[in-house]
Amino acid sequence: MPTNDAPPTALPVKIAGTGAYLPERRVSSAELEARLGLPTGWVERRTGVRERRWNAGETAAHQAAQAARQALDAAGIPPDDLDAIVAASSGPQQLIPCTAAFVQRELRAPEGRSLCFDVNATCLSFPVALHALAPLVALGAYRNVLIVSTEIASRSLNPCQPESFVLFGDAAAAVVLQRAGSGEASTLHLARFETHHSGAEHTQFRGAGSLHHPNDKLTTPCMNAFDMDGPAVFRQAARLAPGFVDDFFARLGWERGDVDAVVPHQASRHGLDLFTARLGFSEGQVVRNIAERGNCVAASIPLALHEAVTAGRVRRGDRVLLVGTGAGLTLGAAALTF
Amino acid sequence: MPTNDAPPTALPVKIAGTGAYLPERRVSSAELEARLGLPTGWVERRTGVRERRWNAGETAAHQAAQAARQALDAAGIPPDDLDAIVAASSGPQQLIPCTAAFVQRELRAPEGRSLCFDVNATCLSFPVALHALAPLVALGAYRNVLIVSTEIASRSLNPCQPESFVLFGDAAAAVVLQRAGSGEASTLHLARFETHHSGAEHTQFRGAGSLHHPNDKLTTPCMNAFDMDGPAVFRQAARLAPGFVDDFFARLGWERGDVDAVVPHQASRHGLDLFTARLGFSEGQVVRNIAERGNCVAASIPLALHEAVTAGRVRRGDRVLLVGTGAGLTLGAAALTF
Repeated sequence: MPTNDAPPTALPVKIAGTGAYLPERRVSSAELEARLGLPTGWVERRTGVRERRWNAGETAAHQAAQAARQALDAAGIPPDDLDAIVAASSGPQQLIPCTAAFVQRELRAPEGRSLCFDVNATCLSFPVALHALAPLVALGAYRNVLIVSTEIASRSLNPCQPESFVLFGDAAAAVVLQRAGSGEASTLHLARFETHHSGAEHTQFRGAGSLHHPNDKLTTPCMNAFDMDGPAVFRQAARLAPGFVDDFFARLGWERGDVDAVVPHQASRHGLDLFTARLGFSEGQVVRNIAERGNCVAASIPLALHEAVTAGRVRRGDRVLLVGTGAGLTLGAAALTF
Repeated sequence: MPTNDAPPTALPVKIAGTGAYLPERRVSSAELEARLGLPTGWVERRTGVRERRWNAGETAAHQAAQAARQALDAAGIPPDDLDAIVAASSGPQQLIPCTAAFVQRELRAPEGRSLCFDVNATCLSFPVALHALAPLVALGAYRNVLIVSTEIASRSLNPCQPESFVLFGDAAAAVVLQRAGSGEASTLHLARFETHHSGAEHTQFRGAGSLHHPNDKLTTPCMNAFDMDGPAVFRQAARLAPGFVDDFFARLGWERGDVDAVVPHQASRHGLDLFTARLGFSEGQVVRNIAERGNCVAASIPLALHEAVTAGRVRRGDRVLLVGTGAGLTLGAAALTF
C-alpha cells in the first residue's frame, strides 16, 4: 500500500476526442477451438471471449493512425495541431526509434511540431500515460496531446498455452488530451498505481530485450510469446485489488455509487467479475467489451472507453473510473470527469 | 519548429542524488581495430572513443540497481522511500513486464509502494522522463522518483557496420528526483523536444517488435542490431540543431554564457563538436566522456551528468543544460538549476 499521503491534485484536463481501429479479420472462438482441438464452448466459458480481431499485416503505426484520426476528428483538430504524440503500448513496432515517431509519419503530422515518445506499463500503459501527460497539459506545456495504444498481440500468441492463445485481440485506440476550458467540468481527479514485483513472472514476454536477445542462440520461440499464469494473476489481483480500490476511493472522496462508468482493463471474464461485484460496483456501472474484442492489452481500456463514448454510455460530464491490472504486477486506477 | 508558444513553467524540482554503474570489462579501441581488421587509430579518429565498457552477463536491472543505490545514497534515502521507478532506456530487459518492475525487485524496494513504468525516447529517454515526471513531483504526487537509464548496447552491435560497432558502450545511470524545498534554488526551467520522422531510418533497430517479430522467419540477425547512418544523422542534426537551440534559449531567457555546464548526449565526437562550437558554447562549458565511455545510448546523458557532479564540475546551484538528439530523429533540451 503506498504510504505517500499527499492530497490528490485535480487537474483541469479533458479527453477532447476518442477513436479506435479494429482490424477487419474476425476470429471466432469456434474457429480457435477447432484449430487447437478444444471442446466446443471451452473458450467462452473460460475467458468470456466469443470473437476477437486479428491483424492481417498492417503495421502498429497504421493501426494507431486510424484510431488517432478518429480521435482528432472528434476533437475537431487537424494532425497539424498536435504538440505531443505518446504511444502507450505493451511493445513497440520496432525497438528503435519509438513507435510514436512512426505514428507522426503515418498521420502526416508535421515533423518538428511534436514530441514523440513511448510509455510502457503493459496493460496499464494508457492510464499511466494519461497520468504522466495530464500535468504537462494542465500547465500549458502542450495544448493537444495524442495518446494512442496500438497492439498486435496475435503475432505473439503462445501455441503451448491455449488459455492465453485464445484470450487476446488486436486493436488500437486513441484520445486527444487538452486543457479543460473555464466552465468545463472535465477533470482528472486522481490517478494511482502500485507495482508488486512478486507478480513479475505471472505475465511475461521474456524475449525481445537484452536478457534473451533475438540474436542469442539460446533464445527459444516460446520466449518470444506471451507466457501467462492466469490463475496466479487472478489470485494476486483478488488479494490486492480490494484494498487498493478502497484506498483510492478514500483519497478521492467518492462513493462507489458516484461513478457513472467503470472502464476496467478487459483482462478476462474472471478479471472483469473481480472488478465488478467484488469491488462493490454494480453490473450496470461496468463497461465490458471482452466478448467481441478479447483482451487487447494496452488498447483495452481506451478501446472500451471509446466504445462507451460512441454508444452514448459515457457522456460529457460523467464520472469515469479507469481501473485494472497490468503485468508487473501493477494495479492502477484513474478517476476523471469526462 | 514547435508553434506552441506557451510560456515556460519553471518547476521546483531537484536532482537530489545521482549514481552510475559501469561494467568491469574495458574494451579498448585497439582491441576492436584488431578484431575488425581496421587500421590502428581508425576508431578514435572517426568516433572519439578510446575505450568503452562491455557488459559481461549482468542484467539490465542489475546495472540499474547499482546505479540507483548510488543515487539513493547521494540523496540520503533508502529504497523504501521510492514512490515511483521509471526506467528510461532505449530498450527493455524483456518485453513484458517493464524493466522498472525488475529494478524495484533488484533494489529490494518494497512492492506495492511504487509505480513502475518505462519511458522510451531512445537516446533522449532520460530528459524526456525528467520532463514527464517533474510536474508530478512538483505537484506532490510523488516525493521520491527514481529515473534510471540502463543500456547493454554490446548485445546489439552490428558486425556489418564497423562505425556503429565501435561506437557504443554499456552503462547505467540514475537520479533521484524530489521537490525542491523552500529556499532551494533547484529548478527545472524548461524542457523542449521535437521529433522529425524523416530521420526515422537514420538510426534504427528494426527487430524486437511487431514489424519484424523475433519468431518471424523473415526476421534477419541484422534486423536485431543497431543500424545507423551516422553521416545522415549528423547532417540532419546540423541542419536543425542551431534553430532548435536558438528557439530554446529565446524561450528560456538565458544567454549561452549563462550555462555552467552543457551535458550533451555523447553521440560521437562530431556530434559533440556540433553541440559545442556550432551552437555557441565554449569547449570549457561542455562535459565530454565519450573517450572513456563511448555512446551509452540513453545512459549517456545521466552518466555524463553523474560524472560531472562527482568530479565537482557541476555543483548545487549551477545552471545545467541537457541537450542532444535521439533516434526519431528527436531534438531535445532541458535547462535546470542543479
